[in-house]
Amino acid sequence: MQQLSSTRSFDGLQNRYQHSSSSLNCEMTFSVFLPKVANAGKTVKLPVLYWLSGLTCTDENFVQKACAQRVASELGLLIVAPDTSPRGDEVADADSYDLGKGAGFYVNASAEPWAAHYQMYDYITRELPELINAQFPVDADRQGIFGHSMGGHGALTIALKNPASYRSVSAFAPICSPINCPWGQKALASYLGDDVSTYAEYDAVELLKVNSQPVPMLIDQGGDDEFLAEQLKPELLVAAATAKNYPLTFNEREGYDHSYFFIASFIEEHLRFHHEILTA
Amino acid sequence: MQQLSSTRSFDGLQNRYQHSSSSLNCEMTFSVFLPKVANAGKTVKLPVLYWLSGLTCTDENFVQKACAQRVASELGLLIVAPDTSPRGDEVADADSYDLGKGAGFYVNASAEPWAAHYQMYDYITRELPELINAQFPVDADRQGIFGHSMGGHGALTIALKNPASYRSVSAFAPICSPINCPWGQKALASYLGDDVSTYAEYDAVELLKVNSQPVPMLIDQGGDDEFLAEQLKPELLVAAATAKNYPLTFNEREGYDHSYFFIASFIEEHLRFHHEILTA
Repeated sequence: MQQLSSTRSFDGLQNRYQHSSSSLNCEMTFSVFLPKVANAGKTVKLPVLYWLSGLTCTDENFVQKACAQRVASELGLLIVAPDTSPRGDEVADADSYDLGKGAGFYVNASAEPWAAHYQMYDYITRELPELINAQFPVDADRQGIFGHSMGGHGALTIALKNPASYRSVSAFAPICSPINCPWGQKALASYLGDDVSTYAEYDAVELLKVNSQPVPMLIDQGGDDEFLAEQLKPELLVAAATAKNYPLTFNEREGYDHSYFFIASFIEEHLRFHHEILTA
Repeated sequence: MQQLSSTRSFDGLQNRYQHSSSSLNCEMTFSVFLPKVANAGKTVKLPVLYWLSGLTCTDENFVQKACAQRVASELGLLIVAPDTSPRGDEVADADSYDLGKGAGFYVNASAEPWAAHYQMYDYITRELPELINAQFPVDADRQGIFGHSMGGHGALTIALKNPASYRSVSAFAPICSPINCPWGQKALASYLGDDVSTYAEYDAVELLKVNSQPVPMLIDQGGDDEFLAEQLKPELLVAAATAKNYPLTFNEREGYDHSYFFIASFIEEHLRFHHEILTA
């Protein structure tokens, strides 16, 4: 692991790293925010939050635009922001923003030409936490996950599939049911191939229906989000949660769109939600 | 004036506009943050802050990275963020990041090939406020100005030259004395030509020495700023202020660099500084 940069932010450090990923079979970058308590030389084990970004993003969008550092530093939360797909010249790509590089959808690809590198599910759930737990002052038992849009889909599905590993999950404008929207159908068909029976394991609505170990879940959704009706479909997740009394708090935010201006407006509430659970 | 976009942010609106500038002789874009009180349909006249950005920036850097909207919305401050130079194919440019487009230095150019468009001082002090005062719910008597690096230089010089128009001024890592640093010497020689006697009217240190109507001034400077020693020279401004008991608060922030992570870390203090004066 090589440090690419280190910048002071709210008495903490906003750092960026590069490493060789064995699961993705390529070089990857990721960002880590170390809150001020980690910067003060004390021996502490911090709660850790993983942020998963949306289509076209890298590890830097959240870091530059979400305004999370102020509250994360105050609360003592370490935040890891990975990239959204494998990267590099040898990695398969597509001529569209919603497939290939920048659009890994947090799945393990089984179909060609994607399987050689697109193993984002393993990277996020196994390889990256192992690296973080070994290299940073975090408490692996106090782990939460959150994300935006495609990354909201990633956060929800990963928490629902690994309730023993994540104590809290939240999302901004998540793709709630990829099997029921164009972005998701295209991605799952490409990465997983023709066997549609395998798609449900990456669909938050389907996973929530069969989940038996609930992880407290917070979702914020902008009411003027241009992707709401066609791509996001939170009503399917709310219905599934209501049907089994799943602990979901769902906030529709009137007038907000799909952008990082929406995320920044409510990031404090999400950080405090995770902090309260992770330090309980 | 044409509205390019409008995005909800912290119960306010982050808007972007385009207009034909007569002083710059080209099309310009600028951004305006309308705090929630302006968004609530009430008839109010808001204090207004002008933010001037640094080299290579447009009107969007501050909007996306400074995390100013939360506190501006809370305090009821309207923030105008203009571009940093004239724009367009017909506008003279240079093959460097520190001259020409993105590097207007907030001066009125008198030398060729710059004079036809590079009249940023007139644009910021006269044309843009006239437009803002006519189109937005602002109180023209409660006006402050702030900026970063080249824009910090712009804010300081403009306030010092127009103490009746600006009640408060602040800056992050400003170029304090362009006549004494490479960035400034290059820009002033290019835009103003050979008569070095004209340079002092765009030098904050020289202007502060002769100022007879002080505007309360706040400056934050990162201690690990890579441009501090060669380009910024705050020690010259602090010495001039001390010599005449000018109301300058100067904070050196240990470990911080020149980036928007530094700005975001202290933007709340600057907004509260301006708000307190503008609403006194």
